[in-house]
Amino acid sequence: MQEGDPVTLEKFFYPDSVAVVGASRTPGKAGHIVLANILEFGFGGPVYPVNPGAGEILGVPAYDSLDALPTVPDLVIAVLPREHTEALMRQCAALGVKHVIIPAAGFSDVGPEGRRLEEAVMAVAREAGITVMGPNSIGTVCPSSGLATSIVSLDRMRSGGVALYGQTGMFASGVARWIDTSERFGISKIACLGNKAGVDETDVLEYLGSDAETSVIGVYTEGVRDGRRFASVLGSVAARKPVLLLKSGRTEQGRKAIASHTGALAGADEIFAGLVRQTGAIRVGDFEELLDCAKAFGMQPLPAGNGVGVVSITGLGCVLSADCAGRFGLALPQPGEQTLKRMGEALPSWVPASNPADIWAAIEARGADAGYGSVAGSLADDPAVHALVAIFTVIPESSLDVVAFFGGLQQAHPEKPLAAVLMTGDADIRSRWKRSLAEIGVPSYPTPERAMRALGAMWQYTSALQ
Amino acid sequence: MQEGDPVTLEKFFYPDSVAVVGASRTPGKAGHIVLANILEFGFGGPVYPVNPGAGEILGVPAYDSLDALPTVPDLVIAVLPREHTEALMRQCAALGVKHVIIPAAGFSDVGPEGRRLEEAVMAVAREAGITVMGPNSIGTVCPSSGLATSIVSLDRMRSGGVALYGQTGMFASGVARWIDTSERFGISKIACLGNKAGVDETDVLEYLGSDAETSVIGVYTEGVRDGRRFASVLGSVAARKPVLLLKSGRTEQGRKAIASHTGALAGADEIFAGLVRQTGAIRVGDFEELLDCAKAFGMQPLPAGNGVGVVSITGLGCVLSADCAGRFGLALPQPGEQTLKRMGEALPSWVPASNPADIWAAIEARGADAGYGSVAGSLADDPAVHALVAIFTVIPESSLDVVAFFGGLQQAHPEKPLAAVLMTGDADIRSRWKRSLAEIGVPSYPTPERAMRALGAMWQYTSALQ
Repeated sequence: MQEGDPVTLEKFFYPDSVAVVGASRTPGKAGHIVLANILEFGFGGPVYPVNPGAGEILGVPAYDSLDALPTVPDLVIAVLPREHTEALMRQCAALGVKHVIIPAAGFSDVGPEGRRLEEAVMAVAREAGITVMGPNSIGTVCPSSGLATSIVSLDRMRSGGVALYGQTGMFASGVARWIDTSERFGISKIACLGNKAGVDETDVLEYLGSDAETSVIGVYTEGVRDGRRFASVLGSVAARKPVLLLKSGRTEQGRKAIASHTGALAGADEIFAGLVRQTGAIRVGDFEELLDCAKAFGMQPLPAGNGVGVVSITGLGCVLSADCAGRFGLALPQPGEQTLKRMGEALPSWVPASNPADIWAAIEARGADAGYGSVAGSLADDPAVHALVAIFTVIPESSLDVVAFFGGLQQAHPEKPLAAVLMTGDADIRSRWKRSLAEIGVPSYPTPERAMRALGAMWQYTSALQ
Repeated sequence: MQEGDPVTLEKFFYPDSVAVVGASRTPGKAGHIVLANILEFGFGGPVYPVNPGAGEILGVPAYDSLDALPTVPDLVIAVLPREHTEALMRQCAALGVKHVIIPAAGFSDVGPEGRRLEEAVMAVAREAGITVMGPNSIGTVCPSSGLATSIVSLDRMRSGGVALYGQTGMFASGVARWIDTSERFGISKIACLGNKAGVDETDVLEYLGSDAETSVIGVYTEGVRDGRRFASVLGSVAARKPVLLLKSGRTEQGRKAIASHTGALAGADEIFAGLVRQTGAIRVGDFEELLDCAKAFGMQPLPAGNGVGVVSITGLGCVLSADCAGRFGLALPQPGEQTLKRMGEALPSWVPASNPADIWAAIEARGADAGYGSVAGSLADDPAVHALVAIFTVIPESSLDVVAFFGGLQQAHPEKPLAAVLMTGDADIRSRWKRSLAEIGVPSYPTPERAMRALGAMWQYTSALQ
């Protein structure tokens, strides 16, 4: 779109009614999955499957055509092959439908012929004032409204403050499932924009900037059409809430690959970098970093300073944390005398107390719960410590009640961000710990570097506001 | 040690007999776990638990003291508090024991008093010609001899070509368990050197350089005592087999943390970097990269060139792979005409064939097995393609037989390295895929970047040899 209109985008997340054109009775088909997702997510309004002669699909009465519906739906999901899309758009225009998601590929993403098809579809949309998400878009996910238009089956997701969006369909498919089964942070909105013939990155950014439910925004882009407008909106949104920005197409070979899968022309990375540098957005290097940081922002309070306390079951964790702290703008402050005295009480007399704190001797002397609890609790009480990282190796011998440990820290210092590092160890136990921690809102990472990087991003955001 | 002596180190991995001094009947105690590990790993020679009055431990007859054993053991594991270590060393000296592992901490790792204790222990060792691993060392793991001296319980590990060693005890605890439960590559040797009062990084490197079982070596170091000797051995070993080198203490804060946990003085990173630059060793940035690369080297053949073929279920995978290829010294060559023609046969007419190949349309048209199989098979046959990366999003709808897919590629091109990317998706299914792939020797990674980085390390090694 050329003019951002937040009100218009609202219906992609909170429609009063939805029609699934091309809904299918056959499990595994896209038209079946879309309908199943909407039902599974618990969308509250009317859902109209449209498919001639289908009768009933997943227990919902189906309609023979769009103009047979009892009302004009707020949102149409066009689960049709590309060649039937223009005709459907004409029906939408005639009925007064204003919002359409087009999942089909084979438009500007595959070359000149597809580009002509896309232009024909968009010409109808423009004339009728229809806002299009796509083509080649698998649409939106909005746990709070129960909407999930993905053509990949999803389980109901946890509602929360993190919005993720961009060109790729991965957000509403693999990434959504990964968040649901592994990362467990709460989602406000997901949007997959595909070819961006209609809604583009800037439109969604503007919308999410005003969305009260969204506290942090993760954007993946392969290149924007109007860099100046994007940068201007980015600056205004990033002043209100953290925006994590992942840009691909950083190399010539990357840009060629982008051109061949969405038809977008990704500009030189230097120009893009120059435009966004002053905006306050946080640039991340890859998908792992995007999700790592989104999780921290989504689960934890912002730090009041850059001082991190580290407790670790292994000296290695201490060294790695200390080594990377500066790279992420963080420091490991020396604790005050009172803190050192309290830490020392948990340690054998010959082990010096310090930050980072090697907890091994305290565990040997006092057991896991008391060892971790007393040393970390003392560090967290120190005014120079603004965030705390606890590093574990998850082995069968671990007797620590990790939920009680972090719960105690949360209760004592709800204002200080926490992170767990589950470094190597048993894969199954690690998964269980990770999920248990996520339930109480503590993010966990596989290495000290990734935990410190996420805290560093939070501090970067906080300090830019000061 | 000042003089490297490979024959001497042999007994830390292949002793004829082992004594566990401080063996314990109490599950959970270090002296119990060490014995249990050796039994679990299936060590073939005699194992002598030593503990006065214990009678029998884990079904093995225990001895009251070291001098009550029927033979002089090749290797003694001293599971004793630090204050009893010097006395034990005197017993070892009197009996003619030549190899001792000292797990106890509290020596030079904790300050002046500990340093004096360590010096006293080492003085006895030097005089008696005893080679010491430690103190603060949890020793070795050698699946092919059934030895595992760790104080953390381990399951029997898969035997293979990867050696990992360094100061940290993580290798024989958390990392070993992570490899066993998640990464599943085969191990030749693990050694955890602790305070390095005796055996140091250079000694082990020299030994592993001549070890026929070891095909790739991963070293973690916080700083070496004699940089020139280390660099000289590194150059000689790296000319014969790949050496992955992870060095911490890269920042001032990191060096302080090192000093406080092993007492080692880590020199300035620039000096170290200068010494190892010309050696041909591959420097890695963190533990994830170390294990990622070790897995690739351990499981796959070396590539004959830098051309990578990429097939991906998502356009995102294509873009990210292409974007990072150059950074890792790799290229995504345009396939030959014959290859393009064969790839095109699996695709709808409107989808152009290319490398990286977005496989989505081929799957829609021909199903997962035929879609992936024909496009990847054609790419792998191309002479410009020296390695193949296949990118998946592991969702419940995935019907692909991933083991048959990679098995086919391995059979057709046993000379070309393969890697799987299991990008987001369902956590449990992803774990299952990862394990199944590891069983057939295919390494998998969570992002395209990490797969390309590992292949890049292999190409870096191969090209340096040319």
